[in-house]
Amino acid sequence: MRIALLGGTGDIGEGLAVRWGRDTDHELLVGSRDPEKARAAAESYAGTVADAGGDATVKGFDNAMAADRADVVVLAVPPYHVADTVEAVESTLDADDVVVTPAAGMKREDDGFHYHPPSAGSVTALVRDAVPDEVPVVGAFHNLAAGRLADLSQELGIDTLVVADDDDAAATVSRLAEEIEGLRALSAGGLSNAAEVESLTPLLINVATNNDDLHDLGVRFD
Amino acid sequence: MRIALLGGTGDIGEGLAVRWGRDTDHELLVGSRDPEKARAAAESYAGTVADAGGDATVKGFDNAMAADRADVVVLAVPPYHVADTVEAVESTLDADDVVVTPAAGMKREDDGFHYHPPSAGSVTALVRDAVPDEVPVVGAFHNLAAGRLADLSQELGIDTLVVADDDDAAATVSRLAEEIEGLRALSAGGLSNAAEVESLTPLLINVATNNDDLHDLGVRFD
Repeated sequence: MRIALLGGTGDIGEGLAVRWGRDTDHELLVGSRDPEKARAAAESYAGTVADAGGDATVKGFDNAMAADRADVVVLAVPPYHVADTVEAVESTLDADDVVVTPAAGMKREDDGFHYHPPSAGSVTALVRDAVPDEVPVVGAFHNLAAGRLADLSQELGIDTLVVADDDDAAATVSRLAEEIEGLRALSAGGLSNAAEVESLTPLLINVATNNDDLHDLGVRFD
Repeated sequence: MRIALLGGTGDIGEGLAVRWGRDTDHELLVGSRDPEKARAAAESYAGTVADAGGDATVKGFDNAMAADRADVVVLAVPPYHVADTVEAVESTLDADDVVVTPAAGMKREDDGFHYHPPSAGSVTALVRDAVPDEVPVVGAFHNLAAGRLADLSQELGIDTLVVADDDDAAATVSRLAEEIEGLRALSAGGLSNAAEVESLTPLLINVATNNDDLHDLGVRFD
């Protein structure tokens, strides 16, 4: 399978790329607005995987070209770039693709991080509105600490939550998630349940901030 | 220590009562609007603890009398009864007491449970507004599945999140939480971070609903 990581030079893109690079045979397409940066990141991620004893196929492109070549397109960009990024790649998407959104709307205030969704109700809903109707959208990978994901020496043993209205797309993304060693995919229901999933991201940051010896936190449902 | 469980005839009150009854020597005061119901519940909880080989002191009172006798007052009532319950016991509270709120505002919709806070921003904020200023308020025990808590044959191995602006009160409640076997207390910061903590409750229900073999879910930060 070909997986595009749009905005893949960022930290969550790096984390997913090196995990999938080490743990699977999927072809990874790092996207960026700047294809030079994408190629440099791709080379660096392949190097990280090689250092961990793996052999990854990672290539760099501009976002539209990465999306065009991919079966699964992950919007690994900050919430405020989601709409722009979708607009830039929209014409390359069709009903056979799956768009995955891991971003959570947050606001940093003096006392902590707070959930701050866009007016659509969640970043996931914003993506659903922006992407052509026939292209399935899946929310996943919101609650993964990017630093921990990118550090292949760290074991995961955590869960990621998946929201989707399209069962096949949900199954595809859950399978991709579970191909990452130590990651379990759990369904949190339909796209309309995305806000509660995205809210977990600021909560994880608040818990990490307020407890000694807990950082790069994940969560396990049990 | 004396712990009042107002609305303690309900399911979360039962769960906390039997866990503290089995695992600690604290005196448990079950409160209800109807003192007869409170006494019957207290007797039943003491019986549950005795069946598990423990020996608990559990008494039943009307809510105001339970609150008056207690050092820690847990508002184990549904969100829509929180304001009424505080009003009924307010005159018994002083700066030496700690008020604990475990409720989360939720709305059940066709597609799942959604976080639906009162206009104060969170149930915790509503309690903070309703309780006299000098009485510390702590949010805790939101994310515990009541059925699992009440079933003493089930091991916990899960976390509860604590929010508070008063460090001493937070420490008291965290200690009480950790005296329950298998429960770890983690700080999620100040009261203003309560909404993200309360949002975890509908998320847990959605995850339990959408995955086979997962029910009465708890969460572990790792």
